[in-house]
Amino acid sequence: MSLIVVGTMAFDAIETPFGKTDKVVGGSSTYVAYSASNFIRPIQQVSIIGGDFPQEELDELTKRGVQLEGVEVVKNKKSFFWSGKYHLDMNTRDTLITDLNVLADFNPKIPDSYQGADYLMLGNMMPSLQLSVIDQLKQRPKLVVMDTMNFWMEIAMPDLEKVLKKVDVLLVNDSEARQLSAQFSLVKAARTIMQMGPKYVIIKKGEHGALLFYDDLVFVAPALPLEDVFDPTGAGDTFAGGFIGHIAKIGNTSFSTMKTAIIVGSAMASFCVEKFGPERLKEITKEQIDSRIRQFVELVNFDIELI
Amino acid sequence: MSLIVVGTMAFDAIETPFGKTDKVVGGSSTYVAYSASNFIRPIQQVSIIGGDFPQEELDELTKRGVQLEGVEVVKNKKSFFWSGKYHLDMNTRDTLITDLNVLADFNPKIPDSYQGADYLMLGNMMPSLQLSVIDQLKQRPKLVVMDTMNFWMEIAMPDLEKVLKKVDVLLVNDSEARQLSAQFSLVKAARTIMQMGPKYVIIKKGEHGALLFYDDLVFVAPALPLEDVFDPTGAGDTFAGGFIGHIAKIGNTSFSTMKTAIIVGSAMASFCVEKFGPERLKEITKEQIDSRIRQFVELVNFDIELI
Repeated sequence: MSLIVVGTMAFDAIETPFGKTDKVVGGSSTYVAYSASNFIRPIQQVSIIGGDFPQEELDELTKRGVQLEGVEVVKNKKSFFWSGKYHLDMNTRDTLITDLNVLADFNPKIPDSYQGADYLMLGNMMPSLQLSVIDQLKQRPKLVVMDTMNFWMEIAMPDLEKVLKKVDVLLVNDSEARQLSAQFSLVKAARTIMQMGPKYVIIKKGEHGALLFYDDLVFVAPALPLEDVFDPTGAGDTFAGGFIGHIAKIGNTSFSTMKTAIIVGSAMASFCVEKFGPERLKEITKEQIDSRIRQFVELVNFDIELI
Repeated sequence: MSLIVVGTMAFDAIETPFGKTDKVVGGSSTYVAYSASNFIRPIQQVSIIGGDFPQEELDELTKRGVQLEGVEVVKNKKSFFWSGKYHLDMNTRDTLITDLNVLADFNPKIPDSYQGADYLMLGNMMPSLQLSVIDQLKQRPKLVVMDTMNFWMEIAMPDLEKVLKKVDVLLVNDSEARQLSAQFSLVKAARTIMQMGPKYVIIKKGEHGALLFYDDLVFVAPALPLEDVFDPTGAGDTFAGGFIGHIAKIGNTSFSTMKTAIIVGSAMASFCVEKFGPERLKEITKEQIDSRIRQFVELVNFDIELI
């Protein structure tokens, strides 16, 4: 079982009500890889970085079973840089700086050695690039999961519609789901989006958890109530990594597996927000992950016999 | 097992993005009584109404085991009237009209026949009146649950602090919990509130469900994802009615019973919002309630064996 992860590897500078960082390593596919590597290896990474991306970070990823043949290195340029400031509610943020740098030239190439992968995670990026990745795969993966954002709905909707027709699972947040579907009710939004292509729609609601829709079925996963959320950056990608990592580990895509995968994703995201950047994701052990997942059982489990 | 319910019985005029009503019957204790009467009887109502309150509504309540000896009728005055308009998100609303009418003179009197009740639900009202009800009870009920609102935190905080010391469970929404505790994190807010008196804190988050805190334990209940929420008026009181009704039915206050009670409350609230006013609550059958509760099992249940 192998998993291809496509997305950004970048630097972020983050300001939250609890503090601020200088440049720390970030990027959607970095978070997905750190998260998913707890469940499945190898992970076959596709991204682009500049000469400034730290070698120690690449070594750390390699140690965790992340293959980097698909990561293009542009030595004389800089890595993608994003800087943002979170509001008090941590669900909304302002972008302060976006320096595309190498990302302006990103044209993902799937190495031959990645062909035949069972799972594909398309991080948030230009829909035409997501489409190009799908088209380069000679054999369709068992499951294709994609993330996207409001920006692409505004400037690249025709391409986005093409990608949606080719994926199995769409991951979006609540406001993106509303924008994409032009429906306020999330139930109606999910139904509209399923008609656009994806069989499964996952709507992320930050501190309010996540919803999984499939056919007429719905599953709700809570977020772990935390005393402090230090930094939500990467939480959505960490969720995605736990989700697809768990599915790849189990090796089937039944609704039952998907439900548990949403919980695994939620547990991983709950670690991510405890420290700035992907720091916390590098420390956690299998025992801590298992124990966190067990907390989710306690969190939602009630005794139906009492009714 | 008997349950005393104290609160308003009123008229509401409601405007939502889906439509508007003329005056319909409302009031916190009306919703609590309709909801709780599915689980426990008798319900001993304490409220105040004007000569304009419909006799059919009183008859309907009586038929459901609601005793009205504690409901003061002021023949030559009008019942409390509230009019409000909901925003598109249905979680926020503007008050258009508040005519206190008889409520200005409300001074709840507990009839002798209500003494010895096992459970007490104090609806949202002036904290000094909530205090007066507690003080009138010769024997402390097994469980005292109270609701309140931001308004009282602003104009009657000393009295509110006195009531909080005497109750077991506080029911508030998320913004009220934050205001009462001066904490943004809901986990910290609940901990601060527990230090003010209540052993249990329930934080209602509307479409995002509810959180139950007790000691170091947390339980999360989702709201049922609905296609349309027609009218959220009374949903919080309906939740409260299902919650305390279930506890009174089971007859203990273990954390396990509380968790299931939160689900029962959530199920009842999901009916309430389907139509304007308490209309839907009058139609539902025991079978429909059981089936709705079973939907919650499906909604949150996942297979831990898959991990």
